[in-house]
Amino acid sequence: MIMEDCLFCKIVSGKVPAARVHEDAAHLAFLDLYPANKGHTLVIPKKHYAHFSQIHGQEVGSYIEFVQKIASAIKKSLKADGINVFLNEGKAAGQVIFHAHFHVLPRFEGDGLEFKANRLEYSDEEEKRAFARKISEAITRD
Amino acid sequence: MIMEDCLFCKIVSGKVPAARVHEDAAHLAFLDLYPANKGHTLVIPKKHYAHFSQIHGQEVGSYIEFVQKIASAIKKSLKADGINVFLNEGKAAGQVIFHAHFHVLPRFEGDGLEFKANRLEYSDEEEKRAFARKISEAITRD
Repeated sequence: MIMEDCLFCKIVSGKVPAARVHEDAAHLAFLDLYPANKGHTLVIPKKHYAHFSQIHGQEVGSYIEFVQKIASAIKKSLKADGINVFLNEGKAAGQVIFHAHFHVLPRFEGDGLEFKANRLEYSDEEEKRAFARKISEAITRD
Repeated sequence: MIMEDCLFCKIVSGKVPAARVHEDAAHLAFLDLYPANKGHTLVIPKKHYAHFSQIHGQEVGSYIEFVQKIASAIKKSLKADGINVFLNEGKAAGQVIFHAHFHVLPRFEGDGLEFKANRLEYSDEEEKRAFARKISEAITRD
């Protein structure tokens, strides 16, 4: 399925150019236009899914294996010291294009990138247990 | 396989306590001690793999499905506006514990978290194509 108004679907179909890194029947990897480090790559399913959480079963398995293949090639070819693999789901999480995509980012010692995050602590064991329990209770049982 | 000196292996075996969220035969989810937002969860394979890139085939497929299940439960139970799923491979990428783990982080509008990153641009089309080609040539063919 191709969404007419989706930038990544247009890249898949070739209507919009991109620096394509690799593809197979179901997946495409291409360079991010504004890399955090050069070689920063986006990896997408060719089929349109707004959100990663909509991809299931065999499809998500082969998607993550394709992501690993790209990560490994980036590490090797750019002699990266490390790799970040990340996914933003929803605007509040930083998702800008609503076609599921993993970022694969080569990292180098001293590259100065950092996730500016809180480092919170739970008030006490009780609060911590309450959070764990709350999430646990929302797990969809198979 | 359990590594004697691995903190996460000790959490799996119960030697070190953790706020356990959910587990199945092969995976465990527990709260990060220093959450970027409360509910920030680490998801690991019970088997010791230092790096995510060492997990293959069926195993990585079921691992990512377990991560999705946790992400969905976090989103629902904490009424999160979004979710980040990320993985740091290697010290240069921020990996501290060398037992593969995905972070699943609930995000809320205006929570102020941000990835302090460069927003580089390639000097020209040629440089961009050269990066894409370099990575592409390192892809392991099946």
